[in-house]
Amino acid sequence: MTRTSGRFLTVEGIEGVGKSTQVAKLSTVLAHRNIAHVVTREPGGTALAENIRDLVLSPRAETMPPAAELLLMFAARAVHLANHIEPNLNAGRWVVCDRFTDATYAYQGAGRGMSQADIGYLESFVQGARRPDLTLLLDVPVDLGLARSRQRDAGGARDRFERERGEFFERVREGYLLRARAEPDRVAVIDAAASVDEVAARIMQVLESKSWIS
Amino acid sequence: MTRTSGRFLTVEGIEGVGKSTQVAKLSTVLAHRNIAHVVTREPGGTALAENIRDLVLSPRAETMPPAAELLLMFAARAVHLANHIEPNLNAGRWVVCDRFTDATYAYQGAGRGMSQADIGYLESFVQGARRPDLTLLLDVPVDLGLARSRQRDAGGARDRFERERGEFFERVREGYLLRARAEPDRVAVIDAAASVDEVAARIMQVLESKSWIS
Repeated sequence: MTRTSGRFLTVEGIEGVGKSTQVAKLSTVLAHRNIAHVVTREPGGTALAENIRDLVLSPRAETMPPAAELLLMFAARAVHLANHIEPNLNAGRWVVCDRFTDATYAYQGAGRGMSQADIGYLESFVQGARRPDLTLLLDVPVDLGLARSRQRDAGGARDRFERERGEFFERVREGYLLRARAEPDRVAVIDAAASVDEVAARIMQVLESKSWIS
Repeated sequence: MTRTSGRFLTVEGIEGVGKSTQVAKLSTVLAHRNIAHVVTREPGGTALAENIRDLVLSPRAETMPPAAELLLMFAARAVHLANHIEPNLNAGRWVVCDRFTDATYAYQGAGRGMSQADIGYLESFVQGARRPDLTLLLDVPVDLGLARSRQRDAGGARDRFERERGEFFERVREGYLLRARAEPDRVAVIDAAASVDEVAARIMQVLESKSWIS
């Protein structure tokens, strides 16, 4: 039987784990193997969803209630799914997405204290049965991630999340690892404290172990 | 016992029923009676919520999925409640709001086909137990409302809702009337086909019948 739908692959992790670098390397590998794919990110991924992203990330004087942040994340996701992710998957292309709903469980759930039940309700409301086929969770100790992130962004403006304290990211990291423990078949935890090439090699091993690429 | 919380009054109706005019007249009456109050609107009511309003209302090339529209409405409401409505009610001021959650049931529910169950879930998630103390539903036949609205806005740009067809507003009007039939103690239906002064007099009768003003 011919596979008609593309694969949906998400890459997750806290600030400074190297998601962007690994997504770019993965895209190069897929292109070399003639696997049609698109690279995208959340929150965002379309013009409208990027407008919502700006609202969520921009620091401002007015307080953003956690419930509003959660609803904006899922509003952006509803747009991204309908206007970009689903059409690409239905056309047989892989979709490689920098962050998705695991990030919502980690940041808005574990980080901000929104309940798993509410997030689960919104997940079903927005996504129906759509879930990632595979999630690569790049994991590093918080101190290392933040040090890398702050080195990278030195002098640049930090967004609403990057301004959070270490203890916030400890909760986020733990929230991610909890997701991985609950769904070990879908979520592969990758030690991202290693070098860029070593992390890339481990990602290839995961894809090969699933016989997605050979 | 002293009443410490202000009253929460919402004004609802389709395009062209005269909400803005009646809200302004009501504010004048309240001011004359030394009733401390604020006038506000949805979607919007704070700087951040007005940014969300712009995303929802602005026509654009990219399609807005109905689920995203619904989530944006409740995101704006979460901001408005936390940063404006609740603080004012808690300070003892009345809040007079041009549209609130009945509009979501009418526009996103009856109009766009989003389920009552999903809207109800979001209502509880965002509002907890907060509901309007009184809702004035200004009701006119759709043809009359649209004719007034288009006369008023002649030459101006129409937003995403104002561009909808008559059958959409027929569903919205019916959705509003359904809300009124389900909660007759809270929702007063006012025939807004009458003159501005007659409608204002009927609104006063409703407030007097509740002994809110005398």
